[in-house]
Amino acid sequence: MKADTPHFLIDLHELRRIGSFKTGVHRPTYSPEDMESREWLMRRMEEVGLAPEMDGVGNVLGRHRESGPKLLAGSHIESQNEAGWLDGALGVMGALALARAGLPVDVVAFADEEGHFDCGFLGSRSAIGELGEEEIDAARDRTRGTPLREALQGAGLSGRPRMRIEPGRYKGFLELHIEQGTTLENAGERVGVVTGIVAIWQYRLIVEGRQDHAGGTTMTERRDAGLTAVRLLAAIDREFPRLCAERTTWTTGRIALDPGAPSIIPGRAEVLFQFRDVSFAVLERLEACLFGLVQESNRRERCPTRVETLRKPMPALCDPAMTEALAAAAEALAPGAWRRMPSGAGHDAQNMATIMPAAMLFTPSIGGISHHWAEDTKEDDLALGLEVMLAGAERYLAR
Amino acid sequence: MKADTPHFLIDLHELRRIGSFKTGVHRPTYSPEDMESREWLMRRMEEVGLAPEMDGVGNVLGRHRESGPKLLAGSHIESQNEAGWLDGALGVMGALALARAGLPVDVVAFADEEGHFDCGFLGSRSAIGELGEEEIDAARDRTRGTPLREALQGAGLSGRPRMRIEPGRYKGFLELHIEQGTTLENAGERVGVVTGIVAIWQYRLIVEGRQDHAGGTTMTERRDAGLTAVRLLAAIDREFPRLCAERTTWTTGRIALDPGAPSIIPGRAEVLFQFRDVSFAVLERLEACLFGLVQESNRRERCPTRVETLRKPMPALCDPAMTEALAAAAEALAPGAWRRMPSGAGHDAQNMATIMPAAMLFTPSIGGISHHWAEDTKEDDLALGLEVMLAGAERYLAR
Repeated sequence: MKADTPHFLIDLHELRRIGSFKTGVHRPTYSPEDMESREWLMRRMEEVGLAPEMDGVGNVLGRHRESGPKLLAGSHIESQNEAGWLDGALGVMGALALARAGLPVDVVAFADEEGHFDCGFLGSRSAIGELGEEEIDAARDRTRGTPLREALQGAGLSGRPRMRIEPGRYKGFLELHIEQGTTLENAGERVGVVTGIVAIWQYRLIVEGRQDHAGGTTMTERRDAGLTAVRLLAAIDREFPRLCAERTTWTTGRIALDPGAPSIIPGRAEVLFQFRDVSFAVLERLEACLFGLVQESNRRERCPTRVETLRKPMPALCDPAMTEALAAAAEALAPGAWRRMPSGAGHDAQNMATIMPAAMLFTPSIGGISHHWAEDTKEDDLALGLEVMLAGAERYLAR
Repeated sequence: MKADTPHFLIDLHELRRIGSFKTGVHRPTYSPEDMESREWLMRRMEEVGLAPEMDGVGNVLGRHRESGPKLLAGSHIESQNEAGWLDGALGVMGALALARAGLPVDVVAFADEEGHFDCGFLGSRSAIGELGEEEIDAARDRTRGTPLREALQGAGLSGRPRMRIEPGRYKGFLELHIEQGTTLENAGERVGVVTGIVAIWQYRLIVEGRQDHAGGTTMTERRDAGLTAVRLLAAIDREFPRLCAERTTWTTGRIALDPGAPSIIPGRAEVLFQFRDVSFAVLERLEACLFGLVQESNRRERCPTRVETLRKPMPALCDPAMTEALAAAAEALAPGAWRRMPSGAGHDAQNMATIMPAAMLFTPSIGGISHHWAEDTKEDDLALGLEVMLAGAERYLAR
């Protein structure tokens, strides 16, 4: 079976024109441009013979009309603010091309993978039955604060039922996505066969000190929450490398000292800290290390630290059989120019992985740029990605 | 000469009622309450036989009508937002009491010692000729952003000339102030004879990294500005104790990571750092240490740091003869219950010290609390402070 690469590229470029912004797109979830792109997608689904539907949170699913073993393939179609043209769109257009080529594939675009609304993976979690009504009630747009209910109403989706992915319907889920990193580019490789999707374990560290005058309070008597936070982060910096795995990442994205004035000893410090890995064992030992360092800090420092655990999802390993099929396709089509690698970012595939075999393929990202309008991938790498996706899907369906 | 302590305490309590807020006061510079307090002060000055005037930035000066050796005494009369009743007010009422007792004293309340407007020590710097028109043009209120020119106009001060303190007129400047720390209280002492006012050397440290995805970017390739900042601050934490003097303080008041989102590697970090000491030699070696650590960081880290020097004023040593007179008075009136100590906070006295002998006296602060409406000092300590001030001033004038 051959992929119609020109049509696939045309689809990508047509989609790029909806909400276009410089060389990228601005299609935040439930915006007019986002809803236009979903309508556009449903027309494209009809053209390739699928039966399209959009659910109560904007998930779009194109159902293959015949019976027999099927794959679910897709990604997301909204974008980050003023961001790239390929993030998400690549996987949906890839899935569409598989359907166009005649493969038994349902095509899906999950709503708000990009997390404009603070409930995270809204569409794919809803589709696996993990998004409760109360969570929808509470969710707001991170940029504007708009309640999700209001946005759904504005998008004409209120009252529409929410779909549930039928696990028994599919042999697996497949997502083609840009790498959003520089591993492939730096290695001169063209395809990534994803081994698993990291789990992101997120924490808020809160240090309680005593706000005081920076001049009138001696070093001996002060309780500087910022200093305790710095010492703890320095300790994490020393200890985590001893325990991490090859591709573990850990990041402090935010440090906030309160009141944050130059002449006032901080009475409070708040740190947002996270680490990521595909191995549950690694995640566990890093968490144990974190808690151990906090305990040590609390024994020694004048300011106590407490840890709020924000999220501890499971890593999502990709299905070995699907991964094998994709690896074989990669070796056949790009011999020696591909690798197995984890995904450092979250994707809808991690939610699909909880109910069916799932796999992902990466194409290189030029300069590793993503979540930015300059995001791009060479056209022949996009084409190769599609070919490997098709060949791998074919091979897996034939098992 | 005897201080009229009851009148002094009544004055303090009357002043407390202007802009009262819980047990403290809210009298930000040039607010209606602040201007009311300045008018009130000028009436009190007249009552004790001084000739009052208010200048173009709100400085209030009550001139002793007779010739002969004089002291200048006072402090400031506005408050921090929702803050204490004694900070500044104590020194002005103390000076007024000295004039009432018949000492040859000009009484002064310098405008905006509390720095509501971002030019710092606006009133006392203006009064020694160190505040240019362009600095006034540029200054804004830290809380509301109101331009200083606008606030002066609203307070009815536009067009009024600014006063210049005549150094030759005075034998010295004397300021009674609350300690704003806990040194006296912890030691069970009742009077502090100030040896000098620390200089505050202030810096902005700017680290330039590369903003990137926390998951897609490996630890090896990332350029995390926040991490470089943490390591630098940890190094300062280790090195400064080796070089500091007994009462040196150093403080990081603010750390800001940009963009400050949990899943984004900070591309930029900004730190506000300062240190304080009364000794120029100590300040110099701490600055050399800071620059040395930054240089080391720049050799080793992936993110370069640069230092912006914000302020490097000179420490202001108190006049030995004035200090001796105050010490003798303290020993006579509170034997063994006083000490010599530096001031860890800046005061108008540091600016007066550049043009005449200057000295300060401290009363204890209950719990070290200041810049807060709960600020307080025991009444008998306030009374003792006044008595030592009067006796010391008398002794010094008689030399």
